[in-house]
Amino acid sequence: MKNDVNRQWVVADAAGGNGLGLTRDQFEYRETAVPEIGDGEMLVRSVYFSCDPMNHAWVKGLEERFKAIPIGDPMCGGVAGRVVKSRHPDFRPGDAVTGFMEFADYVATGPMDRTGTALQRIPDGFDLASGLATLGMNGLCAYFGMGDFGHVKPGDTVVVSGAAGAIGSVAGQLARLSGARVIGIAGGPRKCALLTGDLGFDAAIDYKAEDVPSRMAALCPDGIDVFFDNVGGAILDAALANMAHGGRIVICGGIATYNSPGPGLQNHMALAMRACTMSGFFFFDYIARFGEGVKRLGTLLKSGKIKEVLDVADGFDAYPDAALGQFEGRNTGKQLVRIADDPGR
Amino acid sequence: MKNDVNRQWVVADAAGGNGLGLTRDQFEYRETAVPEIGDGEMLVRSVYFSCDPMNHAWVKGLEERFKAIPIGDPMCGGVAGRVVKSRHPDFRPGDAVTGFMEFADYVATGPMDRTGTALQRIPDGFDLASGLATLGMNGLCAYFGMGDFGHVKPGDTVVVSGAAGAIGSVAGQLARLSGARVIGIAGGPRKCALLTGDLGFDAAIDYKAEDVPSRMAALCPDGIDVFFDNVGGAILDAALANMAHGGRIVICGGIATYNSPGPGLQNHMALAMRACTMSGFFFFDYIARFGEGVKRLGTLLKSGKIKEVLDVADGFDAYPDAALGQFEGRNTGKQLVRIADDPGR
Repeated sequence: MKNDVNRQWVVADAAGGNGLGLTRDQFEYRETAVPEIGDGEMLVRSVYFSCDPMNHAWVKGLEERFKAIPIGDPMCGGVAGRVVKSRHPDFRPGDAVTGFMEFADYVATGPMDRTGTALQRIPDGFDLASGLATLGMNGLCAYFGMGDFGHVKPGDTVVVSGAAGAIGSVAGQLARLSGARVIGIAGGPRKCALLTGDLGFDAAIDYKAEDVPSRMAALCPDGIDVFFDNVGGAILDAALANMAHGGRIVICGGIATYNSPGPGLQNHMALAMRACTMSGFFFFDYIARFGEGVKRLGTLLKSGKIKEVLDVADGFDAYPDAALGQFEGRNTGKQLVRIADDPGR
Repeated sequence: MKNDVNRQWVVADAAGGNGLGLTRDQFEYRETAVPEIGDGEMLVRSVYFSCDPMNHAWVKGLEERFKAIPIGDPMCGGVAGRVVKSRHPDFRPGDAVTGFMEFADYVATGPMDRTGTALQRIPDGFDLASGLATLGMNGLCAYFGMGDFGHVKPGDTVVVSGAAGAIGSVAGQLARLSGARVIGIAGGPRKCALLTGDLGFDAAIDYKAEDVPSRMAALCPDGIDVFFDNVGGAILDAALANMAHGGRIVICGGIATYNSPGPGLQNHMALAMRACTMSGFFFFDYIARFGEGVKRLGTLLKSGKIKEVLDVADGFDAYPDAALGQFEGRNTGKQLVRIADDPGR
């Protein structure tokens, strides 16, 4: 790669394929010049792209901060990188930052990212990858979701779907640290072994090989106190049917529902019969508390009390396949694409 | 009717018809003798039977307090009546009580009803009917549901489904008293006129004649802050799609889902995108606060700040049709069956 070429992934066909435009030809490769920066801007050298299912929905526009990305414009998502030039007083070359930015080698940006959120700094002593994973949106979603809505008490039975994913793996570990018995749902024996092995989950359900409702019932004879959901669909419906009285369901994601609507939830009346609450939360409502979350997660990560699971695809060209693979559950842990060496401080 | 004959409705065919056995031949008429009472018991003269959709599910058994009623046993439900004999120190002839009891002219009961809940006393100055409606389970569900989970603030937009029903009519009026703009959903022009007329709702949606999602969107341009649901199904899905950021959904009932499962909820991810909470509550968790609720509702009812809407079918034989009619939305307000004159104090 020459230094004067700026590779980009561009949105090529927002309407193609299915409801979310989730096809390989949605992404088009383009080379442009490395952008110039103006006053108050900096140039960020991207190192990691973050693959988040939400990125795809962003192409068509999402609520609030995510206006539709026009066809022909760069694809956007979470990026971790280094400031390499700065004309902003608060940022210096070598600063490690994350934000929702263009998927390109180089991005000229002010202190606010494409969603209007301040760029986040990655604390010293952590790899840039952690800035997108445990210390980024994924870890923070686990932290705020489990903390503010799970209300985990020692002895609770907590079930996490998408448990081997970027958010689920952290959410489950946080619940264990709160004294809960934690059961993870994941696809395939390798992911399940990761959960009950390295990550210390008490049990795992392999949704590809086992009947989730009956395994849930068997593993949770007194019901589920907290269900932390990243999946939606039939798995959420099974959890509804197995909730304990007074249980809490945290809606974090719904990857099973993003590409096809599916049969819909049948068991919502369990909320009334068992006095349960199903809460969603919006990540950007927590901006003022990002610092608190990063501090806590950083401490836990550094001490080894939570383990970070990364799934890193190598090279700029790896992005589309890595992004699409998430919807097939190909990733284990946080799916990243490493597009360049970290230039470092 | 002779005084020595005790008419009963008996569960005849719990498996028949559909999922909840909701057919006319589920109910069988039987005459028995007026029961004798033992020590610690009293004889209650039933005056009103309460028609609640839940009664039917009880035939097959429900969560917690509602074990399945065996075929051949008396049908049970909410009853308001007078104590006519007592061998219990706390009850005297003339006392007005309600409880979940057999649907019969006379019931021998201790101070606990068929669900293990203490019989409730109807305060002096209120008709026995109010003891089942505004001051009974229906009014209390509205009070606790709207109060503990709706968190209505002045200026909020509140939408109530089943708004012309026993619970919805009270829930909507309570929300108005909290300063909300209240929109009711009901079936047919007569019910809608009741809502916007006598009951003071700000607007009504006729789900039988209007497209609920588009009317909801038009009437709630800033979204729904509180959705109080008695219906479930497509109407709940429409509400999910129209929630405001930070909105609260209170799951009180799901009459649309009791007889046929329907297509299921598609829009639950709105909970995450709009930081909403969907809470159910279980009536019997609130036993310790029944007194508080009855006092408040009684004050509002007496002062005319909330109006009670009763739909009274007359005569013992009217029960099965009245019970079934609820599932077709035939009732307006609280469906009761008046089986005898109130013998009075």
